[in-house]
Amino acid sequence: MSVGIEWVIDADGCDAERLRDLGLVRRLLETIVVELSLRVVEGGATFHAFPAPGGVTGLFLLTESHLACHTYPERGVATFNLYCCRERPEWAWEPKLRAALGASQVRVRRLIRCPDPMSTGAERAFAERERS
Amino acid sequence: MSVGIEWVIDADGCDAERLRDLGLVRRLLETIVVELSLRVVEGGATFHAFPAPGGVTGLFLLTESHLACHTYPERGVATFNLYCCRERPEWAWEPKLRAALGASQVRVRRLIRCPDPMSTGAERAFAERERS
Repeated sequence: MSVGIEWVIDADGCDAERLRDLGLVRRLLETIVVELSLRVVEGGATFHAFPAPGGVTGLFLLTESHLACHTYPERGVATFNLYCCRERPEWAWEPKLRAALGASQVRVRRLIRCPDPMSTGAERAFAERERS
Repeated sequence: MSVGIEWVIDADGCDAERLRDLGLVRRLLETIVVELSLRVVEGGATFHAFPAPGGVTGLFLLTESHLACHTYPERGVATFNLYCCRERPEWAWEPKLRAALGASQVRVRRLIRCPDPMSTGAERAFAERERS
């Protein structure tokens, strides 16, 4: 028994203007929350826009753990972490980030948090398969 | 050029009472912030204690990205994410989490976020070495 799954997503080739748009990024994170039936803890949403040419950050403290996003307009990159201690379906990161941010490449890594036993093995390698 | 390093830490065998102590967990996160010279964005610290027998969560929105901690007293587990888009030294996770939380096993994974090029290779395998 682990304490959850973490999805680690790196999206490259994104549209820089969209990565600077805090409202757009916020709506994207809210869409993920709604579509995966996640629950945001009261007062648990934090957003920040860094001075130009910087990007934006959004953090959600969830009943299920957390959702984080950082954008780097100068690199065309957006990164996401979704850590869920409750089983959730896969979100369609690749097509949805292509549509929302104009991403040309989306890499999804899936980590098991604190697997039991924590030692490495075939099961973990299987569970932590990488998909792009 | 990547957009940063993420340390993913799972600590097992921790003392359950300490994992329920929001003040202790908050001080631990603040110690990490101070010792690594991280900068918390104004209003960017969020904490939550779940109802018993639940644990606690802390999230820091950093100029350097984010620091997150979730505890699971019923499992004796604490998990941490430290994502830094600015080069930082290694924090001594294993001895410090043994001392602070009574952890018996600490696993540290190190991920490169959005390496350039994002394709896999020996360089990434080297950078993402696992240490325990």
